[in-house]
Amino acid sequence: MSGRGEIDRLVTLLARLPGLGPRSARRAALALLRQPHARMLPLAEAMEQAARAVRTCSACGNLDTTDPCAICADPARDHGLVCVVENVGDLWALERAGVHRGVYQVLGGTLSALSGIGPDDLNVQSLFDRIAAGGVREVILALGTTVEGATTMHWLHERLARFDVQVSRVGQGVPVGGALDVLDDGTLAAAIMARRPA
Amino acid sequence: MSGRGEIDRLVTLLARLPGLGPRSARRAALALLRQPHARMLPLAEAMEQAARAVRTCSACGNLDTTDPCAICADPARDHGLVCVVENVGDLWALERAGVHRGVYQVLGGTLSALSGIGPDDLNVQSLFDRIAAGGVREVILALGTTVEGATTMHWLHERLARFDVQVSRVGQGVPVGGALDVLDDGTLAAAIMARRPA
Repeated sequence: MSGRGEIDRLVTLLARLPGLGPRSARRAALALLRQPHARMLPLAEAMEQAARAVRTCSACGNLDTTDPCAICADPARDHGLVCVVENVGDLWALERAGVHRGVYQVLGGTLSALSGIGPDDLNVQSLFDRIAAGGVREVILALGTTVEGATTMHWLHERLARFDVQVSRVGQGVPVGGALDVLDDGTLAAAIMARRPA
Repeated sequence: MSGRGEIDRLVTLLARLPGLGPRSARRAALALLRQPHARMLPLAEAMEQAARAVRTCSACGNLDTTDPCAICADPARDHGLVCVVENVGDLWALERAGVHRGVYQVLGGTLSALSGIGPDDLNVQSLFDRIAAGGVREVILALGTTVEGATTMHWLHERLARFDVQVSRVGQGVPVGGALDVLDDGTLAAAIMARRPA
């Protein structure tokens, strides 16, 4: 496939996106190449605008086009209720579900000895600052229930003990709509432990 | 998710790519947003360059940055052997396999009464012109074995009968590495019909 450097480069860069392999990257590239003006240039322009506009919220670590982000700047949200998540994707998921009326703290990762991620690598100082400044009533730890997530929640729980703030964590158990027989033992154990009067 | 127009627009446009749904588009957008300068701007630039550079080969219908395309312009290829494919993706697949040393004719579709695609919608006149100009020895029909592909091969076979050119079609049968018991009856029948001395 000599003599088509631009096309090869496009396929190569598309294949690096999560969720796209070489095969689907070629399909995506072909779809774009077939409609360069209707599809490819608008996407390229959207990328450039987003790259220029995006910034990290200095309060919570969210990605937005403003700093502070739209959530932190929203007076209608409960700034006394801070939900700690691992990454912006988790924040987006909670926002789509519309289940959290407070604000967030995006850690940008979880503690991991294997990956060499220590406390200093987490975006957590601004949370402590917010709490120390007063006004934070409750911190919800909404990290994944992996080993790293559990380790991070444990560490955060310890660090937050010195503040006068309530610390809670998201409930564990059977997913809504989920069947019991496909769940792992750990989830089943957590579901039994978290049983409530019916 | 108000106040993040640029991010929403990026997700929306990414979700329109084949192979990406809303969920994977969000993941891809996040990966790009996390590295706007290392990942997003290079991809945007590659798209713009490709959109500016890409053109359709007037000889065969291939997409390339030159017209005629690199394959049609290559004197080392056998211009007397033309392989007819439905789309550029099929051409890429044959080029990756390195199994065709001739040139191509990209139809841009197959005859389909349902989709309203008739003979006039296929990129086929340049094939007839090439044959009429002489020098084409054999035409290989390499279309998919769907109803539309078979219809198109039948129609092309009839149209090519008036030229002094050999017409062949790709062999049908058991895919290399394929197990017999997962194949459909039509493929098995074709494989038996196409049997050869062992």
